[in-house]
Amino acid sequence: MKPTNKPTIAPAKGRLALLTPGMGAVATTLFAGVEAVKRGLAEPIGSVTQMGRIRLGKRNENRSPLIKELVPIAALEDIRFGGWDVFPDDAYASATHAQVLEQDLLDQLKEPLQAIKPMEAVFAPEYVKRLHGTHVKKAPTKRELGEQLRADIRRFMKDNGCDRAVMLWCASTEVYIEPSAVHGDLASFEKGLQDNDPAIAPSMIYAWAALKEGVPFANGAPNLTIDTPALLQLAKEQGVPVMGKDFKTGQTLMKTTIAPMLKARMLGLEGWFSTNILGNRDGEVLDDPGSFKTKEVSKLSVLEHILQPKLYPELYGHFDHKVTIHYYPPRRDNKEGWDAIDIKGWLGYPMQIKVNFQCRDSILAAPVALDIALFIDLAARSGMKGIQEWMSFFFKSPQHAEGLYPEHDLFIQQTKLKNTLRHLAGEELVTHLGLDYYED
Amino acid sequence: MKPTNKPTIAPAKGRLALLTPGMGAVATTLFAGVEAVKRGLAEPIGSVTQMGRIRLGKRNENRSPLIKELVPIAALEDIRFGGWDVFPDDAYASATHAQVLEQDLLDQLKEPLQAIKPMEAVFAPEYVKRLHGTHVKKAPTKRELGEQLRADIRRFMKDNGCDRAVMLWCASTEVYIEPSAVHGDLASFEKGLQDNDPAIAPSMIYAWAALKEGVPFANGAPNLTIDTPALLQLAKEQGVPVMGKDFKTGQTLMKTTIAPMLKARMLGLEGWFSTNILGNRDGEVLDDPGSFKTKEVSKLSVLEHILQPKLYPELYGHFDHKVTIHYYPPRRDNKEGWDAIDIKGWLGYPMQIKVNFQCRDSILAAPVALDIALFIDLAARSGMKGIQEWMSFFFKSPQHAEGLYPEHDLFIQQTKLKNTLRHLAGEELVTHLGLDYYED
Amino acid sequence: MKPTNKPTIAPAKGRLALLTPGMGAVATTLFAGVEAVKRGLAEPIGSVTQMGRIRLGKRNENRSPLIKELVPIAALEDIRFGGWDVFPDDAYASATHAQVLEQDLLDQLKEPLQAIKPMEAVFAPEYVKRLHGTHVKKAPTKRELGEQLRADIRRFMKDNGCDRAVMLWCASTEVYIEPSAVHGDLASFEKGLQDNDPAIAPSMIYAWAALKEGVPFANGAPNLTIDTPALLQLAKEQGVPVMGKDFKTGQTLMKTTIAPMLKARMLGLEGWFSTNILGNRDGEVLDDPGSFKTKEVSKLSVLEHILQPKLYPELYGHFDHKVTIHYYPPRRDNKEGWDAIDIKGWLGYPMQIKVNFQCRDSILAAPVALDIALFIDLAARSGMKGIQEWMSFFFKSPQHAEGLYPEHDLFIQQTKLKNTLRHLAGEELVTHLGLDYYED
Amino acid sequence: MKPTNKPTIAPAKGRLALLTPGMGAVATTLFAGVEAVKRGLAEPIGSVTQMGRIRLGKRNENRSPLIKELVPIAALEDIRFGGWDVFPDDAYASATHAQVLEQDLLDQLKEPLQAIKPMEAVFAPEYVKRLHGTHVKKAPTKRELGEQLRADIRRFMKDNGCDRAVMLWCASTEVYIEPSAVHGDLASFEKGLQDNDPAIAPSMIYAWAALKEGVPFANGAPNLTIDTPALLQLAKEQGVPVMGKDFKTGQTLMKTTIAPMLKARMLGLEGWFSTNILGNRDGEVLDDPGSFKTKEVSKLSVLEHILQPKLYPELYGHFDHKVTIHYYPPRRDNKEGWDAIDIKGWLGYPMQIKVNFQCRDSILAAPVALDIALFIDLAARSGMKGIQEWMSFFFKSPQHAEGLYPEHDLFIQQTKLKNTLRHLAGEELVTHLGLDYYED
Repeated sequence: MKPTNKPTIAPAKGRLALLTPGMGAVATTLFAGVEAVKRGLAEPIGSVTQMGRIRLGKRNENRSPLIKELVPIAALEDIRFGGWDVFPDDAYASATHAQVLEQDLLDQLKEPLQAIKPMEAVFAPEYVKRLHGTHVKKAPTKRELGEQLRADIRRFMKDNGCDRAVMLWCASTEVYIEPSAVHGDLASFEKGLQDNDPAIAPSMIYAWAALKEGVPFANGAPNLTIDTPALLQLAKEQGVPVMGKDFKTGQTLMKTTIAPMLKARMLGLEGWFSTNILGNRDGEVLDDPGSFKTKEVSKLSVLEHILQPKLYPELYGHFDHKVTIHYYPPRRDNKEGWDAIDIKGWLGYPMQIKVNFQCRDSILAAPVALDIALFIDLAARSGMKGIQEWMSFFFKSPQHAEGLYPEHDLFIQQTKLKNTLRHLAGEELVTHLGLDYYED
Repeated sequence: MKPTNKPTIAPAKGRLALLTPGMGAVATTLFAGVEAVKRGLAEPIGSVTQMGRIRLGKRNENRSPLIKELVPIAALEDIRFGGWDVFPDDAYASATHAQVLEQDLLDQLKEPLQAIKPMEAVFAPEYVKRLHGTHVKKAPTKRELGEQLRADIRRFMKDNGCDRAVMLWCASTEVYIEPSAVHGDLASFEKGLQDNDPAIAPSMIYAWAALKEGVPFANGAPNLTIDTPALLQLAKEQGVPVMGKDFKTGQTLMKTTIAPMLKARMLGLEGWFSTNILGNRDGEVLDDPGSFKTKEVSKLSVLEHILQPKLYPELYGHFDHKVTIHYYPPRRDNKEGWDAIDIKGWLGYPMQIKVNFQCRDSILAAPVALDIALFIDLAARSGMKGIQEWMSFFFKSPQHAEGLYPEHDLFIQQTKLKNTLRHLAGEELVTHLGLDYYED
Repeated sequence: MKPTNKPTIAPAKGRLALLTPGMGAVATTLFAGVEAVKRGLAEPIGSVTQMGRIRLGKRNENRSPLIKELVPIAALEDIRFGGWDVFPDDAYASATHAQVLEQDLLDQLKEPLQAIKPMEAVFAPEYVKRLHGTHVKKAPTKRELGEQLRADIRRFMKDNGCDRAVMLWCASTEVYIEPSAVHGDLASFEKGLQDNDPAIAPSMIYAWAALKEGVPFANGAPNLTIDTPALLQLAKEQGVPVMGKDFKTGQTLMKTTIAPMLKARMLGLEGWFSTNILGNRDGEVLDDPGSFKTKEVSKLSVLEHILQPKLYPELYGHFDHKVTIHYYPPRRDNKEGWDAIDIKGWLGYPMQIKVNFQCRDSILAAPVALDIALFIDLAARSGMKGIQEWMSFFFKSPQHAEGLYPEHDLFIQQTKLKNTLRHLAGEELVTHLGLDYYED
Repeated sequence: MKPTNKPTIAPAKGRLALLTPGMGAVATTLFAGVEAVKRGLAEPIGSVTQMGRIRLGKRNENRSPLIKELVPIAALEDIRFGGWDVFPDDAYASATHAQVLEQDLLDQLKEPLQAIKPMEAVFAPEYVKRLHGTHVKKAPTKRELGEQLRADIRRFMKDNGCDRAVMLWCASTEVYIEPSAVHGDLASFEKGLQDNDPAIAPSMIYAWAALKEGVPFANGAPNLTIDTPALLQLAKEQGVPVMGKDFKTGQTLMKTTIAPMLKARMLGLEGWFSTNILGNRDGEVLDDPGSFKTKEVSKLSVLEHILQPKLYPELYGHFDHKVTIHYYPPRRDNKEGWDAIDIKGWLGYPMQIKVNFQCRDSILAAPVALDIALFIDLAARSGMKGIQEWMSFFFKSPQHAEGLYPEHDLFIQQTKLKNTLRHLAGEELVTHLGLDYYED
């Protein structure tokens, strides 16, 4: 089962610009963490590109190299961080404000973090109602805002001697919108930019700018952003990989872990109640019903696609699924999820599972953000373009080809990720059949 | 990737005897459930063979037949239940005593359940200290006890017009023993039977009897039983499939679901504390330290094999893992597990997961027991013999070939199960690569 | 410390009409339960009047009679149940619909329950938006609706040979309103009845009718109802006892248990997050923001009054308190609360308490309803009129004299209840001083 | 109801020696905390003597002075800390090792903490099996060990210019022993000291030494210690107050909060399962079955005395109560309790409560230790001697006069504490009757 079509991958030479719209808790936890790891102050726990291994060949060959030994991943030393934000705070000030990492650690990283000063953001208050930023670009048209972003990218790369760049949306969740005509093809979209079409959200302007510059774009929030025909067309034309939406972290990570178990075991579901309390800026933004709607849609779709009610009507045809998020300042970034899951087993007898996940939003998101950035850069160097469904593993609401359903099951996503990496490296895919171990 | 070596599978014609040493809560919940399903009184929820589907081909082909449509599984109508027990209660009386199913339902099934009367058990009080049964066979040697069991099997098959049989250990957990010389090869073992070697447990006598009769044997408890060179040799010589150990139900099911997520995401583990309260006969038996030891070994090994501390010393090199079980009568069969999981993320920051699983022991075990019986019968008809590692999915402590490690990850186990079924049916194995969806 | 002013209490002779506006889950669980207890089918667990004992004298006197032996409580045999509802279902049909009690038990009580047929309700859809009843009274003025209720009361008492009656609001939560001029005194209120003032809610018409008939009124919901100067004036004038508001059952019961502990131990509070999932009609009604507001106000005030932030600013000056309720059908009447409590101890170090209360709404409420009815009848026979603060123990939002704060601490409420009963019986009050045990 | 027998209380003049056998986590958290509070670095949260207020008179008088304004409590500035330990570490080193308080804070208190050097302990390995200390006194008889302790006390008081002293056992839990003849009266006990009777535990030698010096003794562990006729006789003869046993902190604190609610509401109990995980030295010691037995007895008795099964056989006649403690290093001092409580309500319907208390052992214990020391000193100055039952509030297993039952209900304990303080100050006792608020 050796694949014969091993692709050619350009080596990870030179510097990589990692640019984030949004320099809040997630982005600064990422920046600070990478700087800490580079200095030997901490381990990059939670990062698949940094710590993950991959089994190759048969189980008894004992071949499990690091992923970064199997495929050429950019080195942490070669990353240069940049970002845009609606507040002028540098990464040190912003990280201090976010209260995710201990001040002690931040103080040891003061110099590199202070050097990361945000560029002025593209911002529209109607898209994020609870934020009131001042550090924002002004221009008569969305097109010109986009051009300013393109200039920012070029300037950053030049100033920092970067050969490649990736852009990763780490900013707030925008209000919910449905795709409309202006998102239907590239020409309409670019006309909309010119005409200040209100259906073009700031995040779309960032994505457009990145793609125009040939920079891969990934979306850590549930906004529509890159998930439109117009921008996917641009990605294809530019030969650039893209992926979204929404970092898969706390409660959804857990949900896409437990739901596959229920289905694997054919246990029925009567209801799944999820509540979340968090007290960071993200929580504040999601207190706005418009932003919450975007998040809710992203979070609710998960169960339906994993459980396939149409195939299993007796088991999953009628479950209630409720997701709520509450802004609760005492928890700060230490998000806490509580899930009450009502299941049924043999002959319909009811059982219950309760999960209390006392997690940390940005601590879970930062390594995911790093992995996405490094893998999408790998994809670009491998000549892959458009949607990178093999990266679904990292997203709450993974983009996918038309006509397919999204794959939400964390373990199918992992198999897809790993077999794609094996494929890229020309290694045999793993099927776990393994009958040969038992042949005489 | 179509396999060319599709095996020939004999059709599932005629009646199948499903024989259980032990007619307590699990076995009677299985018997009653199957009878209820046959009468349209309930759904066989939790059973992969009855309700499970399997995706074939590409995602957009929409081919997901029932597993039992893909491979020839014995029909429920063709099963005849029989068992042995240390108490003389018939299945109706025993199920009533177990208080798992509602009396209302049991009363509707009184006739078929009363007809299942236990044969006298082979029992040794030193192996199960908390039980004091009276309905037991007597004979001067263990060999003769085994011969009596063989006669039981033959008589049951004849009386019930069965063409095939499987034996499934549903009795109590025996005290912990390590393999010794008497288990080293078949000759020593059979000499030990003759000499009443104390290291030969009752469960081994059942397994020996089954194999001598050409009957597949599976082990739902963590006892050593079939997991010895002697009996595996016998299985091979007889050409009979076997598998064990220990039904994977409540807490371990959850553990082998969550641990793979931690590892998939490279989240570190500092400690995992598991406690269980249950109040049924199983709980009473496990209150004996010897029986608990057997269970504990079965439950503890799980994390080590999933997390691979040798490959990931920074993440999994030093975690504490504690498993406790408490006999707590108010819960009866409604076992309840509580897990406190201390994990660490990005830069080592700690987070916590708590899981409270309010399950029902026998409700989870019964469909697993059914699936094991039906799949091992399928294996026999497919000419597979010895250890059936592809059935690891159903076991807490799956047996495996020498030189391999056991696979505990529920999702790898599921892939192995499904790809084996695809293989048996001559269908292409699924790798989830799927890059072709994105080719122009 | 023997009180010398022991009041005279009329004996509990003759029949007592227990009349409930609302014949839903709570009322029918009460009716069915009392009928079951009368027939020896079940125990009146949760009822202080039926099972509670009270210590008298010194600890070593071992005097702990039943409360109902100390003071004259009406016997269950003497109660006659009646009610009003917007649906025409009799108590058997309504209890069956509510799915609180097992059908088996209800079927044994079919006869007495079917005999309880609701009288037509006074209903205004603008006060309870999620209900659409048809079994309602019609009249040109609210005054006339009130007169119809008075006639109902008289007719019921006559038909059932009752000497006394009490009315207990067991219907849905009405939308939130603040007291206004029409509630300011009795004359304005009665003019409002005549003029159909929109600020007069249905529950107020019931209360007015009861008081006019000299019938004690208690309020099991958080509606304003009797908590206005106008109706309190009427109660005083008529010499009738009244009390409210809102049965203290699940989450608030727990909250008023744990908060007093925190304060007793001077542990600080940073935040208290409470969420509730329930799937009965009550949950459906509370899904309407207006009704929820009424409930929320009732639930939120609890902590402030127990913790006294003004006296303890360092401990309780700045806590976040959030209460949410979610309509979640899978739980039906089996309400489930989850509380996440962030506390701080010595030197400000944080700790957490999580409470998961898997309760049953009506099972908790029914005995409370019974106790309220029986105690308010006792109050009437003891010549007590107006607010009965000593019954605070049973209410989420207890009414109290002007110029006082409400007492929410469950244990102070209990002391108040018990010392009042001791006082009524002419027994010494208990102070728990007890130094005399240690005198030589 | 003004008491006329207001006692005379000597003022809290001069220095108070607070001496602790055991200078581990609890003692050093106490020492460090008081030093931090004295320097304005932190608040004495959790301490009733420091932050508690007490209501006087009627509710509408608004008189709630601080307790320390009502009765003369020793000032923190006047306390001098001393202790004995089996390890020679000073309080700074020991606190650092205990990992309870942040190193940052400890470093600010390095000077005063380093100055507290332990005196050599009286230690017997057969009484605390998991500890292996070296910093221990040697002498041919237990009597002489006691005399050495007496000399230690005198020397410490002289060196530190103290006028008064109290001794508070903060050391490990000793193995379980039952009282025997040697504990029966003082003469036997003192003979036993001379004869090295094995039934005299080290803690008893400390208590004897304290009493001989006229120093009040309190016991923060569940050991028998002062709870024997012999030592109570000595306390009476010396006119010294004593009290024990076992600081009431995490799980038992919660249990004595929730159980009174169940009883107040007449909710039945079917079972209460409590498990505890903790990873400090205390956890290690309790891993020894002998020490655990002592703790278990202390923890188990609580429910029986609160719930009074003899008075309420239908509600509390048959509950299962199980308490387990597991040594689990990842939690360190951050003890975590999980309680699963099976209750029954109206007509016997079952409900469940789960409580997860993520507490910190020493953070809860330190203010309790402070309060005990300051209140027992108050008792001494008030001429109170022998058992101080009014301090039951702080103890898991409160000592009490013969012929009485212990009072475990936290809220009765609190009433007892507060009314005793009112009594000491000549204030009216509070009964919460309050009918006068409603008189015209």
